[in-house]
Amino acid sequence: MPITADQVKQLREITGAGMMECKKALAETEGNLDKAVDVLRKSGAALADKRSGRTANEGRVDAYIHPGHRVGVLVEVNCETDFVARTDEFGELVRNVAMQVAAAGAEFVRREDVPQDRVAREREILAAQVQGQGKPPQIVEKIITGKLDKFFAEVCLLEQPYIRDDKRTVADIVKDAAAKTGENIVVRRFARFRLGQD
Amino acid sequence: MPITADQVKQLREITGAGMMECKKALAETEGNLDKAVDVLRKSGAALADKRSGRTANEGRVDAYIHPGHRVGVLVEVNCETDFVARTDEFGELVRNVAMQVAAAGAEFVRREDVPQDRVAREREILAAQVQGQGKPPQIVEKIITGKLDKFFAEVCLLEQPYIRDDKRTVADIVKDAAAKTGENIVVRRFARFRLGQD
Repeated sequence: MPITADQVKQLREITGAGMMECKKALAETEGNLDKAVDVLRKSGAALADKRSGRTANEGRVDAYIHPGHRVGVLVEVNCETDFVARTDEFGELVRNVAMQVAAAGAEFVRREDVPQDRVAREREILAAQVQGQGKPPQIVEKIITGKLDKFFAEVCLLEQPYIRDDKRTVADIVKDAAAKTGENIVVRRFARFRLGQD
Repeated sequence: MPITADQVKQLREITGAGMMECKKALAETEGNLDKAVDVLRKSGAALADKRSGRTANEGRVDAYIHPGHRVGVLVEVNCETDFVARTDEFGELVRNVAMQVAAAGAEFVRREDVPQDRVAREREILAAQVQGQGKPPQIVEKIITGKLDKFFAEVCLLEQPYIRDDKRTVADIVKDAAAKTGENIVVRRFARFRLGQD
């Protein structure tokens, strides 16, 4: 089977591997797309999730100081190339993320960042709330999970409703930007200071 | 002994207590300044360090983003009144502190903030450097203390030489502002992000 440009394109889409690597893999498997995917995955050239596996070490550090200087936020958002980092759109994304942190008071970037003991404490509190309502155990577990999700959505930036469009989450906004730029975009960290409050 | 205005002034200078309280204390001790100081200290009206004991819960949060957006700093500096917080001079102080953090890369505000294990680790490294130089123990201890001071002066913001005038420390600059405003001014905290570096 001759290797077509379309196949190479498809293979790139699926694996995120480089053009030459895709051509080589297809040549090796004589045009068999599925086998080519395997070849690339084995060699490590393919990534589990096309974009999100790629290293994002460029980006921007920016800040938002709320008028009155009583609340301020510092944020770092990464992308893959300095080129994208310098675009107006990326700058706007970073500023919007900073403003989100200031306005909605997130404590963590993502739920994986919430310390285990905090999750445990939250779970305990929520379990106590549901207790004594006489509901069957599996329902109780569902309720607790639901309430925990709500907790994560309050304190985890990426799960919060976006202040400029609350039908979408902050994660959605970041994914949009990633899709537009074709690069892996990651909200790396933030700091939020509120005057007089640790 | 009649109570003079000068005595009241002196007593205020020493204790930082209010005018009426100073007059009262001097009346109680019949003009004996030293005893009046004790009276005020016992009653809690005097403060160990005139200004630095006063609560500073007002102030400003500000940021400095270095051109290029690869380094950014968020800082909170406290003072006692919203009035001082809103002055241009205070704003300038806070911005200068932020710039200092960005430029000189402090890790902590003051040496008391350095975790014990970090100090211990530093001490170990410095002790190893001095070891084997065949110096007497008390000299070795002096050398280590000197090197530790140097370490604190590098990583502790308040002990760093001020970038705009390296004959003075950041603590000096803050003290100046405190003297000028008559208020307790405290650098409460800061965050420093350098792109790609935790």
